[in-house]
Amino acid sequence: MIIVMKKNSPKEDIDSLLNRIEEKKLKPVPLYGTERTVIAVIGDERILDIDTIRAFKSVDTVMPVLKPYKLASRDTKYENSIIKVSNDIEIGNKKIQVIAGPCSVEDLDIQMQTSKKCMASGALIQRGGAYKPRTSPYSFQGMAEEGLKIMETVKNETGMPICTEVMDPRLVSKVAKYSDIIQIGTRNMQNFSLLKEVGKTDKPVLLKRGLCSTIDELLMAAEYIMSEGNLDVILCERGIRTYETTTRNTLDISAIPVLKKLTHLPVVIDPSHAAGDRDLVPALSKAAIAAGADGLLIEVHIDPEIATSDAKQTLSTDNFDSLMEELKPIAEAIGREI
Amino acid sequence: MIIVMKKNSPKEDIDSLLNRIEEKKLKPVPLYGTERTVIAVIGDERILDIDTIRAFKSVDTVMPVLKPYKLASRDTKYENSIIKVSNDIEIGNKKIQVIAGPCSVEDLDIQMQTSKKCMASGALIQRGGAYKPRTSPYSFQGMAEEGLKIMETVKNETGMPICTEVMDPRLVSKVAKYSDIIQIGTRNMQNFSLLKEVGKTDKPVLLKRGLCSTIDELLMAAEYIMSEGNLDVILCERGIRTYETTTRNTLDISAIPVLKKLTHLPVVIDPSHAAGDRDLVPALSKAAIAAGADGLLIEVHIDPEIATSDAKQTLSTDNFDSLMEELKPIAEAIGREI
Amino acid sequence: MIIVMKKNSPKEDIDSLLNRIEEKKLKPVPLYGTERTVIAVIGDERILDIDTIRAFKSVDTVMPVLKPYKLASRDTKYENSIIKVSNDIEIGNKKIQVIAGPCSVEDLDIQMQTSKKCMASGALIQRGGAYKPRTSPYSFQGMAEEGLKIMETVKNETGMPICTEVMDPRLVSKVAKYSDIIQIGTRNMQNFSLLKEVGKTDKPVLLKRGLCSTIDELLMAAEYIMSEGNLDVILCERGIRTYETTTRNTLDISAIPVLKKLTHLPVVIDPSHAAGDRDLVPALSKAAIAAGADGLLIEVHIDPEIATSDAKQTLSTDNFDSLMEELKPIAEAIGREI
Amino acid sequence: MIIVMKKNSPKEDIDSLLNRIEEKKLKPVPLYGTERTVIAVIGDERILDIDTIRAFKSVDTVMPVLKPYKLASRDTKYENSIIKVSNDIEIGNKKIQVIAGPCSVEDLDIQMQTSKKCMASGALIQRGGAYKPRTSPYSFQGMAEEGLKIMETVKNETGMPICTEVMDPRLVSKVAKYSDIIQIGTRNMQNFSLLKEVGKTDKPVLLKRGLCSTIDELLMAAEYIMSEGNLDVILCERGIRTYETTTRNTLDISAIPVLKKLTHLPVVIDPSHAAGDRDLVPALSKAAIAAGADGLLIEVHIDPEIATSDAKQTLSTDNFDSLMEELKPIAEAIGREI
Repeated sequence: MIIVMKKNSPKEDIDSLLNRIEEKKLKPVPLYGTERTVIAVIGDERILDIDTIRAFKSVDTVMPVLKPYKLASRDTKYENSIIKVSNDIEIGNKKIQVIAGPCSVEDLDIQMQTSKKCMASGALIQRGGAYKPRTSPYSFQGMAEEGLKIMETVKNETGMPICTEVMDPRLVSKVAKYSDIIQIGTRNMQNFSLLKEVGKTDKPVLLKRGLCSTIDELLMAAEYIMSEGNLDVILCERGIRTYETTTRNTLDISAIPVLKKLTHLPVVIDPSHAAGDRDLVPALSKAAIAAGADGLLIEVHIDPEIATSDAKQTLSTDNFDSLMEELKPIAEAIGREI
Repeated sequence: MIIVMKKNSPKEDIDSLLNRIEEKKLKPVPLYGTERTVIAVIGDERILDIDTIRAFKSVDTVMPVLKPYKLASRDTKYENSIIKVSNDIEIGNKKIQVIAGPCSVEDLDIQMQTSKKCMASGALIQRGGAYKPRTSPYSFQGMAEEGLKIMETVKNETGMPICTEVMDPRLVSKVAKYSDIIQIGTRNMQNFSLLKEVGKTDKPVLLKRGLCSTIDELLMAAEYIMSEGNLDVILCERGIRTYETTTRNTLDISAIPVLKKLTHLPVVIDPSHAAGDRDLVPALSKAAIAAGADGLLIEVHIDPEIATSDAKQTLSTDNFDSLMEELKPIAEAIGREI
Repeated sequence: MIIVMKKNSPKEDIDSLLNRIEEKKLKPVPLYGTERTVIAVIGDERILDIDTIRAFKSVDTVMPVLKPYKLASRDTKYENSIIKVSNDIEIGNKKIQVIAGPCSVEDLDIQMQTSKKCMASGALIQRGGAYKPRTSPYSFQGMAEEGLKIMETVKNETGMPICTEVMDPRLVSKVAKYSDIIQIGTRNMQNFSLLKEVGKTDKPVLLKRGLCSTIDELLMAAEYIMSEGNLDVILCERGIRTYETTTRNTLDISAIPVLKKLTHLPVVIDPSHAAGDRDLVPALSKAAIAAGADGLLIEVHIDPEIATSDAKQTLSTDNFDSLMEELKPIAEAIGREI
Repeated sequence: MIIVMKKNSPKEDIDSLLNRIEEKKLKPVPLYGTERTVIAVIGDERILDIDTIRAFKSVDTVMPVLKPYKLASRDTKYENSIIKVSNDIEIGNKKIQVIAGPCSVEDLDIQMQTSKKCMASGALIQRGGAYKPRTSPYSFQGMAEEGLKIMETVKNETGMPICTEVMDPRLVSKVAKYSDIIQIGTRNMQNFSLLKEVGKTDKPVLLKRGLCSTIDELLMAAEYIMSEGNLDVILCERGIRTYETTTRNTLDISAIPVLKKLTHLPVVIDPSHAAGDRDLVPALSKAAIAAGADGLLIEVHIDPEIATSDAKQTLSTDNFDSLMEELKPIAEAIGREI
C-alpha cells in the first residue's frame, strides 16, 4: 500500500499513521519528498482497512498494491480452472461450450423443441428462466418451480444439463436441486446474501457481471462465492451500461483478455443481453470466440415472436443453427473447437 | 405507444402487427409516411408487452408514450406524499429531516454519543448499519441483531427513530421489528425478492438509487414496493457511477427536480456516499437543500479515524454541528426549515 | 511517482529502470516487498514521461504523486484568482456574476431586448453565439461577424460586456476584438491549437468542461491556455455525459468543491446546457450557488418559442427575473451576493 | 417525427403547434389518446428544427423517426463504399487493411525500420504522428512538417501510403499534400471547422470516434465532411470512455455491426488506443476481424521502450509479426483476407 500525505502534513499526523501501521505488524517506509511525504507499507497490506487509512488526518490518497481477491486470482492458482458441469461437459477446456434456450421457460413443448434444435446445432447445455427478474412488478415473473420441472423433463429426454437463475436466497436449495449450473443475474452480482448461499452449494455458479460493475468488483463477487467453499465459478460478461444507446448495453469485449490475465476462472459471453438485438448477436458471438471466450450464453426460441420476454434479442433456432456453422472455423482458427 | 416500422416493410408484417394490437383491445392507427410506416397505438399501452412488440418482424423501434409506473407517478397522485416516521417526525413536509450517524453500528457508547450529539445539532433520526454490504467477504460484515439492539437502546434513551439497512429477505421481519425506516441499499435496488418483502411490512422504506440505475428504474423499484401495499417509500439519490474519479460517485443533483416532476414521493440525498470524501459533504448538502431535497442522510461519528467502515466520508460530530448551522439559512431562503 | 513492478520481475528489468530514473537526476527508492517490488521516485517526477515508464519491461502500474498541472494548481497560487472582465465587473470575487442571453445571436432587436431585461434582473454580462457548433452541418451555423456586431451595438447601449464562443483558431483575433470573455465550447476543450491561440490573447477565457472530460483534463486544458501567457481562465462545468437520459447531461455539482480544492481559478456553472430543459434550470442554479459557484451562464430569450437553437432549455426573460429573485437569499445565506 | 404533448394540454397549444408544422408544408396527424395527445408528422421531418418543436408550450417529448444524416446513410447508398488509398490499396473491400507504425514520428531510422518490418508482416499503410494532441502542454508535441517529410522519405522507399493526423484547420492543406489518408483524432471529432476543411480536400479521411460520442454523432461528423464534397470517409472506433478502469477505454465492438447496418462507409478498429495496453491488442484485433472490421490501426515500434509517446500500448515489430500470423486464419474463417 502506498499512502500519499497532503502537502505540509504535520509531523504528528505522519507519526500517528506510522504507529497505526506498525501496530498491525506491517513495516511503514516513509519517503520524505520535495513536495509531499509518501509512506510505503511493506507486508500483506490486505490486513489494513483501506477506508480507515484514508480517513487518517493529512492523508491525501491511498493506493493499494495488491488485488483484494485471493482465491479468484491467477497469482494464487496459475492454471486455468476447468469446471465440470456433467460427466462429459466441461467449461474452460479446449471445447467452447454454448448454453442456449429461451429467456423464460414458457411451456414444455417450446422448451423441448428449442432445446432439441439447439443441441442438434451444437449447444450442449439448456437455459431458461423459471424465476425472472423483471423491471416491472406487472410483468410476467416466471413459472417458478413448474418451470424447473419442465427443464428437468427436457434434461431427462435429451441429457442436456440445466442452467437457470436464482434470485432469492430462500430458493437456492430448490434451484440447486434441479440445476447443473446456478445463474446469478446481473442485478444480483452484489447481492451478498445470495452469493454466500450459492457458495454453500456444490453446483457450478455462472456469475453475471453487474451492469455497472468493474472487473475488480466481479472478481470480489466471485471471491464471496469461493470463500464459502464453492470454487466452481464461471464468470459472464453481458454488457455494461454506457451512454451509447444504439445497443442496449455495451459488450466489454476487453473483459475477456483482462480476466484471462487476472484470474484462472473461465469466462463466458452473453451477446444476447449485451446487444438487446438479435441482428447483432452473430457479430458479437464471433468476436467473443476470437477474443478467447470459453463459452457463449445465447437466447434462442423456436418462434421469437411469441416469446414472453426479451423477444427482440432472441435468435430463432434456424438463425442459431447458421450462427453455429459460422463459429466453427473461427474456433478452429484460434486452436479450439465449438 | 409509437411503433416505427423498417423501411419498405411488407404489408403482411404490418397487418399481422395491427391484428395483434387489436386482439389486445387497443386501437392501432397506421400512418403511411414517405419513407416509413409508423403505427400509433391508442389506449392504455401498458397492457402490451413492449418486448414482444419489438420482436415483431419489420419493427424498427418502439417508443412508449406512458411511463411504466402508476402508483409512484405524480399523474396518479398529484399532492406530495408526507411520510410519517413517528408521532412527530414526517418526511416530505416543510421541515427537512436529517438522518445521521455512523456507517456501521460499532458499540453502544459510540452510537449513543454520536446520536446524542447529532440530535443536539438538529438531526432527529439515527442511522447505523447492523448488516453491512461489503465489497470484500473478508471485511467486517456488521454486528447483526446485536447492532439493532444497540440502536434500540439509543432510541429508548433519546427518542430517535431508527433507520437501518436490510439486505436479505429472510431478515426483513426482524429488521422491521427494530426499525422505523427500513433502508434498501444501492446494490439491492433491483433485488426484487427483497423489494416485495419490504413491501409487505408497514414501515417506511428508504430506497437508495442503484449505482447505475436510471430514474425510471428507481421509480419502478418503488412501484415494486408499493404494489405490495406499502406506499411509504422515500427515494434516495446517493451518487451514480460515471467516468469521473475525483469523487467516488457523481451526485446527480438534477435527480431532485426531475423526481419532483415525476413522482409525489419524498426525495432524500446522501452526500456522504456520493462524494466518498467528508470535505465535499458540506457543499453537496447545501446544494441538495437549495435544489429542493426533503432530507439528508449523513454519516457522522464522534471519532471518524476509528470508525470501522467508510471512515473517509464520515463527518465528526463537531463538523456536523457546523454544517447544520450553515444549512439553516439556506433552508429558510427557500421557505423551509431544517 | 510510485512504480509497481510485476510479480517476480527479473533483477535486470528493475535495475534498468532504476538507471533510467537516475539519468533524469531523480532518486529512485526501491522497496522489495513480500510479493512485489515498488519503486518510489523522489524529486519532481513531472520530468519523467509517465507513458515511457509504463512501457518498461516488468512494470505493472505507475501512480503519479503530483498533479500534472502547475499554473492552474492551488499548490502554486493559494489565493483565489479574481478575473477582471471590465472596469467594474470581476469574476471570482464576493459578487456572483450571471452571464445571460440567447443561445444564438439572431437579430439586433432580440439581443437588445433580451439583454436589457436580463440586466434589469441583475445579469451584468451578455452572451450570444455568433459562431455555433452544431451537430448537423444542415443546422443554422450562426451569424458570424454580423452577430458579433449586434452584440457590440448592445454593449455600446447597455454597457454589458460580451461573452461569446470561438471555434476556429483562424477567428480568434476577430472574436477577441469584439468580446470581453472568449468562450471555448465543450467540444473544443481539447482543441489544443485553439487553446494555444486564445492563450496568446489578453481576454479572459471561459473554458467549458468537455462532455466527458475529467476534472484533471479540464485543468490541463486551462494549463494549455495559461502556459501561453494568459492566466485569466474561468472554468465552466456544464454537465457531463452519463447513462441517465431524463436530463440531457448530468450536472456534476461536486465539481465545484473539487475544483475549489485543486485550483485558484473561478468556477461558473451552466445549468441550461446541463439540463437541456428550462424547467430544471431554477433548481440547478440554486444548487450551484449554494455549492459555491462564482457565476452562472444561463440561456434567456424574450420569446423562447421562436429561438433558433436550444429553445427547450432557454428561460423566458420573465422566468429569469423570478429566478434571480429566488437566488438572492441563497447567495446571502452563504455570505455572498448576486 | 412523433410529438407527445403533456397531459391535459390546452387546445390552443396543440393548435399553435399544428399550424407551425403546416407552415413548413408538412402534414401533422393529431391522435387524441385517453391520456395524452400525440402528433405524428408526415413528410421529411428533417426540415423541422427538433429543438424548436421541443420548446413549444405543452410539448413533453419529441421523437425523430428519420436519422439526421443522409450522405452517410445506408438508406441513401446501399452498397458498401470502397475507398481508394493508392493505385492498389483499397479500404472496404475483401482485403482487410492494416495501418501500422509508431505513435509519433521520431526519426527517419525508426520510421523506416518500423515501416519496413510492418510491411513485411503484411501492413500496407504506414502511420505516424507529426502533430500530436497531448493532454499536457509540456509534453512532446510532435516534429511537425519535419515528421511529414520523414514519412514521405519512407513512402518513397517502400511505397507505403501515409496516414497521419491533422489538428488545425490552418494545416490541412500542408498535411493533405504529404498524406494519403488524413486522420481526424478523437478529440477533434466535433471540431467542425476542421471537419469542413478536410471535407474540401480530395484525400480520404480517417475519422476517429470521439471518446464519448454516440454512433449517431460519429455519423453526423462524417456527414460534415461529406457535405463539403469529400465522400471518402473511413470511420474508426477506438474505445469509448466508461467507468471501467482496467483498460484505458472500452472498445465498443458492437459499433462494427451497428455501423454496418446504418452506413455504407468502411469501419476500422484501433485496438491500441482502446486498450492502452499492448498485452490486450492481440485479443482485440482478433475480435475486430471476426466482428467484420474493414481494417486495423495498430501502434508498432521497433523498440517500444524508447518510444516517445504511448509506449505502453505499442507492439514491438516482432509481436506485430506474430499477431498478423494469427489474424490470417480468422480473416479466412469469415471469408476475407488480411
